[in-house]
Amino acid sequence: MAVLRMADGPVVTVGHVKPSRPDFQVVGAFNAGVATLEDEVILLLRVAEMPLQPESGAVLVPMLGENDGELRLVRLSADDSNYDFSDSRVIKGYDGSYAYLTSMSHLRVARSRDGVRFVVDEQPAVFPTGEDEAWGIEDPRITQMGDQYYITYSAVSSRGVGVGLAVTRDFAAYERLGMILPPENKDAMFFPERINGKYYMLHRPVPKSIGAPEMWVAESPDLRHWGGHRYLMGLRPGHWDGGRIGGGAVPIKTDGGWLALYHGADADSRYCMGAALLDLADPARVLARSRVPILAPEADYEVNGFFGKVVFSCGAILAGDTIRMYYGAADEVMARADIPLADIWDSF
Amino acid sequence: MAVLRMADGPVVTVGHVKPSRPDFQVVGAFNAGVATLEDEVILLLRVAEMPLQPESGAVLVPMLGENDGELRLVRLSADDSNYDFSDSRVIKGYDGSYAYLTSMSHLRVARSRDGVRFVVDEQPAVFPTGEDEAWGIEDPRITQMGDQYYITYSAVSSRGVGVGLAVTRDFAAYERLGMILPPENKDAMFFPERINGKYYMLHRPVPKSIGAPEMWVAESPDLRHWGGHRYLMGLRPGHWDGGRIGGGAVPIKTDGGWLALYHGADADSRYCMGAALLDLADPARVLARSRVPILAPEADYEVNGFFGKVVFSCGAILAGDTIRMYYGAADEVMARADIPLADIWDSF
Repeated sequence: MAVLRMADGPVVTVGHVKPSRPDFQVVGAFNAGVATLEDEVILLLRVAEMPLQPESGAVLVPMLGENDGELRLVRLSADDSNYDFSDSRVIKGYDGSYAYLTSMSHLRVARSRDGVRFVVDEQPAVFPTGEDEAWGIEDPRITQMGDQYYITYSAVSSRGVGVGLAVTRDFAAYERLGMILPPENKDAMFFPERINGKYYMLHRPVPKSIGAPEMWVAESPDLRHWGGHRYLMGLRPGHWDGGRIGGGAVPIKTDGGWLALYHGADADSRYCMGAALLDLADPARVLARSRVPILAPEADYEVNGFFGKVVFSCGAILAGDTIRMYYGAADEVMARADIPLADIWDSF
Repeated sequence: MAVLRMADGPVVTVGHVKPSRPDFQVVGAFNAGVATLEDEVILLLRVAEMPLQPESGAVLVPMLGENDGELRLVRLSADDSNYDFSDSRVIKGYDGSYAYLTSMSHLRVARSRDGVRFVVDEQPAVFPTGEDEAWGIEDPRITQMGDQYYITYSAVSSRGVGVGLAVTRDFAAYERLGMILPPENKDAMFFPERINGKYYMLHRPVPKSIGAPEMWVAESPDLRHWGGHRYLMGLRPGHWDGGRIGGGAVPIKTDGGWLALYHGADADSRYCMGAALLDLADPARVLARSRVPILAPEADYEVNGFFGKVVFSCGAILAGDTIRMYYGAADEVMARADIPLADIWDSF
């Protein structure tokens, strides 16, 4: 593999991002959606924030209040035996259920002319709103159609994780278009053009009693309403994508098919990136799939961080015969790797 | 409560239903969708069948083959310690996952002039087809709009449980319209008319990591594609509907609001029926909810059966000021109870 990581390491780190409130600290700027607007590359970062923890022994958890929708901090005792604090991302109840997230995420714009040096906006672009986003919004994907940019993101609350939709023309004003997939679902992204007159989407349900976190395809007449759900592809037990999989970057049209970069985690929650090639005329038909990852967590900032051993792309740009893949590393920073298309074909 | 159960007990039992194959036995005829067509009441039964078990020590499990879609019987050893055979409905793996269902369900028509004495068709109406239905189709709801009857049902396979859609004009020929909600989701039914120009549906996702089996509302321009998902109502821990809830009969329009009969199970999986009253102009707004069940499993055929302590309605008919509620009892038979509307109002 001739993967080229940027020589200077991550393109955005938490130090580049101003907290949205003085009593918050930024703990992650990662899993960004990617778009191009005029002569700029836009990263729509997932910015994860935690309250500054003022007292030893107390844990403050951020969320929107159920009744008034205002941001509030819930105070837990760090030695409360009703909770399991061992996961950096989530506080679990005694029964293994998710009781709280340790951080709350919003979306923030970063811009660059050269695709490497980014300037991060001082203010959030899209902040969680309403009860279905009370625990935050995460992992956006951006699909450009004409002059509209459609943003699919994870809407997280105690009710579950669903897929929300917003749209913008300028990355300044955003319109929300509601929840397009109910819980539990994430890793959803639109194909960039109509196929056979219909819009298509990849998504990743997480069923409880039967089934696994695997990838599905859906279709729509209008991008807001979805049906025709079909199973796309599943786990490969024992392999790099044997634990969970989900769509990554918005599919890229190539002569050989739709190139869908996707993430796969193994049983140890090590997240790699791979690719699937989907039929141009029927994106529910898998033509090829990476035997080996096209990117695995190897650099220090991929192996170590808020949640280590993770590379997780939500967007990429095709430039000539190279994929410029932007990706979250270790649930903490944004990085970029340039991968020749030929190497992706070789992975099939 | 002036609930009136039919004096002669269930209106359909397994003895009324001919197996679809000579090597099958019918173990359930229950959870039927309900419609009226000309002067008949139609029950679209869920008919659950098990292979006749020819050898002691062996367990035969029915499913459609992954490659050819043909029905086949998987042979397990009853003393195989990899499996837990203790649940009559499902064979679980060592890790608690669903490995197989013990039975496979299809849909079958039963007809009646008086709404009490039913004649069951000899052949299936809708039989599982394709990989997403490889383990069966279950629990239909029927919504009539004009001369079309829309049937929403659970499509079950190793990939999960999603919501399938079919349509008929005559309960003779059926057209499938695809999966309208991906796993894990069931207990979906359409409202019988447009509201503010849009179609609405109740549905019940089962999220894995965050959230509970609770009721949501979605909207659609065309019945095939759905979006605008909104949370409707949740569990009430410690009450009759504290374990799981889901829509039951197709909502019935009343002066006071949409009357949505729904099922609730408590922590012991005792299933009762209750009601919610939803705003006529915004069905995501709950106006009232039964404090106590309107029907609880009390009759012998409700308490004892394939899976006991269950009353579970998928359809009801408003006749004057009385609800004729058809319901599956103990996952085995179909029964009917007549409930005065006044008693339902009293439950709020």
